[in-house]
Amino acid sequence: MKLEFQIEGGRMPTRPPAEIGISLSEVDTPALLIDLNVFEGNLRKMAAAAAKHSIGLRPHAKTHKCPIIAMRQIALGAVGVCCQKVSEAEAMVYGGVSNVLISNEIVGFSKLRRFAALARIAKVAICADDAGNIADINQAAVEFDVEIPVYVELNVGANRCGVEAGEPVLHLARSISSSSNLHFAGLQAYQGKAQHIRDYKERGSAIDAAVDKINHTIDMLQSDNIVCPVISGAGTGTYEFEAHSKVYTELQVGSYIFMDADYALNLDEKGERVSEFGHSLFIYSTVMSKPHSDRAVLDVGLKALSVDSGMPTVVGYPALNYVRAADEHGTLEISHTDCPIAIGDKIRLIPGHCDPTVNLHDWYIGIRDDRVEAIWPISARGALL
Amino acid sequence: MKLEFQIEGGRMPTRPPAEIGISLSEVDTPALLIDLNVFEGNLRKMAAAAAKHSIGLRPHAKTHKCPIIAMRQIALGAVGVCCQKVSEAEAMVYGGVSNVLISNEIVGFSKLRRFAALARIAKVAICADDAGNIADINQAAVEFDVEIPVYVELNVGANRCGVEAGEPVLHLARSISSSSNLHFAGLQAYQGKAQHIRDYKERGSAIDAAVDKINHTIDMLQSDNIVCPVISGAGTGTYEFEAHSKVYTELQVGSYIFMDADYALNLDEKGERVSEFGHSLFIYSTVMSKPHSDRAVLDVGLKALSVDSGMPTVVGYPALNYVRAADEHGTLEISHTDCPIAIGDKIRLIPGHCDPTVNLHDWYIGIRDDRVEAIWPISARGALL
Repeated sequence: MKLEFQIEGGRMPTRPPAEIGISLSEVDTPALLIDLNVFEGNLRKMAAAAAKHSIGLRPHAKTHKCPIIAMRQIALGAVGVCCQKVSEAEAMVYGGVSNVLISNEIVGFSKLRRFAALARIAKVAICADDAGNIADINQAAVEFDVEIPVYVELNVGANRCGVEAGEPVLHLARSISSSSNLHFAGLQAYQGKAQHIRDYKERGSAIDAAVDKINHTIDMLQSDNIVCPVISGAGTGTYEFEAHSKVYTELQVGSYIFMDADYALNLDEKGERVSEFGHSLFIYSTVMSKPHSDRAVLDVGLKALSVDSGMPTVVGYPALNYVRAADEHGTLEISHTDCPIAIGDKIRLIPGHCDPTVNLHDWYIGIRDDRVEAIWPISARGALL
Repeated sequence: MKLEFQIEGGRMPTRPPAEIGISLSEVDTPALLIDLNVFEGNLRKMAAAAAKHSIGLRPHAKTHKCPIIAMRQIALGAVGVCCQKVSEAEAMVYGGVSNVLISNEIVGFSKLRRFAALARIAKVAICADDAGNIADINQAAVEFDVEIPVYVELNVGANRCGVEAGEPVLHLARSISSSSNLHFAGLQAYQGKAQHIRDYKERGSAIDAAVDKINHTIDMLQSDNIVCPVISGAGTGTYEFEAHSKVYTELQVGSYIFMDADYALNLDEKGERVSEFGHSLFIYSTVMSKPHSDRAVLDVGLKALSVDSGMPTVVGYPALNYVRAADEHGTLEISHTDCPIAIGDKIRLIPGHCDPTVNLHDWYIGIRDDRVEAIWPISARGALL
């Protein structure tokens, strides 16, 4: 595990902001808190939903980057996890996860060799959307004498990676099947753009359109006698639609375990905010300055939370709005001057976007009944390669 | 240095994306590159500017989080560095820096004890804007039997932390002076909001207004026989004005070493873009997918760069625009279909905002003449406490 880099390079390991057994109010800040009761409820609800629909559950580990959480998802029935990066997959495998789909294209021999080497000790699969890349994956697989399942990424409307439905998929599936050390495993069909469509029907329509593209593609593959065993996709915003589709075989949901502030703005069938999963992830912060009756400053800014999907929500103080994030400061506007807030007070924030926020922290502090019960390393934090 | 957390907790240290001696094109991605020639030119230019104006240079280490860079700044004449967090200051001191100003309020005994303990082995100072906090700093100083220099943070227009000019500063300066283990060291007077005002004259006016507040405050302190030895402030966007002010005694510039894409949009006296400091920091990325003639996808998204100050700039390809950052993907729009870009190509990006981007990486890869010359650990990455 190359610990010599830590020592030789002189990097300073961070210390956790808590110890097991102390009370929440004693936790230092900024800290990334998990409310364990809510979190475990979220895990159980998604596991039950997948079981109910007899669909596979392959949660996305890019959300939590923590093998301990992955193993809990697997203990509740998940078939394995997804990752986006090879180094993320390494962290999962080294942490005990034996089944990982890299739901992403991996380019370059440095990474493909790491990936193929990982296939010697775990069941790992990969996605591709290019024939040249498929040839490279095969070359790495040959070098390490492994057999690799490859998914073709289908563009189901997100317009990011992935080839178009039908013929382009068939072309790549043939290319995979004709490679010495690869086999065609199915379709990667994640509709990322649909996840945050607020309206329920519109979200459903986006997934209907994805299903049409998948069905068209499956027909074409079948006419060429190519079996497509797995259709993997879905996110927390749309998973019910994929689960009902009878086409998808695997859910790649990630955010349900924590629930971003942004995801919680989606509306359900009745036009009300979705409430199936609770917010379990918080940034714990301290008021470090209160220079005016209408302004306070928290010790949590851009280096402790990501604001790409909007500012965080303040828990428990309706009069407080987190309005501006600087590198190490968060400015609160105080709308009622009688709001009882003082320097030293500790405040929980719900991040607008959990995934990049988690990636800023080294430790989860698990809280139950206002007491620290768990300190989990975020093993794949910074796993960029 | 608590390495047991790495081992016991099972965190996976990241491996650098390069080895010393390889060529740039062999560096894996995402990687945080420093162009060493440009970087060293930036260091020398700011050192020369400070020397010319006979003003102290105390570069902000929140930008680089790297003691190796801090020591190079000090070798060129800097009096020490600034930090924003106690854990950042620990990383600097453990890395050889003996003089650190925490240019920020530090709240809570957990951090104040760490700070006071640091004062046993290095010259460290701190800022305050509250009498209760000053009492806490003194208590920690008493516990560790150290004498702490305390700066009062003055709100010079940024409207974040800091008290108003005049009487409120006097009140806190007296409080510091009457504390058993503290002494009043001067004013922290950083005008953060002025840094990105594009127009030269407007930037100058903002600093003029700051100087008025400082002068008013110094007069009031003098009338109470309180000496104010240091006035510390300034950023890369405004440092010339502070240097000319004859009031500021110390420059806290940080970004000049790297130059954000955003800073480079400031205009100089002639109405042209500032060009004194060159871009020396880049994110190295790989094209991982090119599904359409008008779209390519890079392996660099929100987890490898911060987009809070805008999208990154693509180097060397006028036809490419980085238009969207997802967690692990960056979407490029290709405006000319004859743009010669293919899967596997490696592209440099200039981050919109360097400080939070650096905080996402564990390693700087220093490049000279297209060859890796340095791999520097970003020791204070994730130093949140």
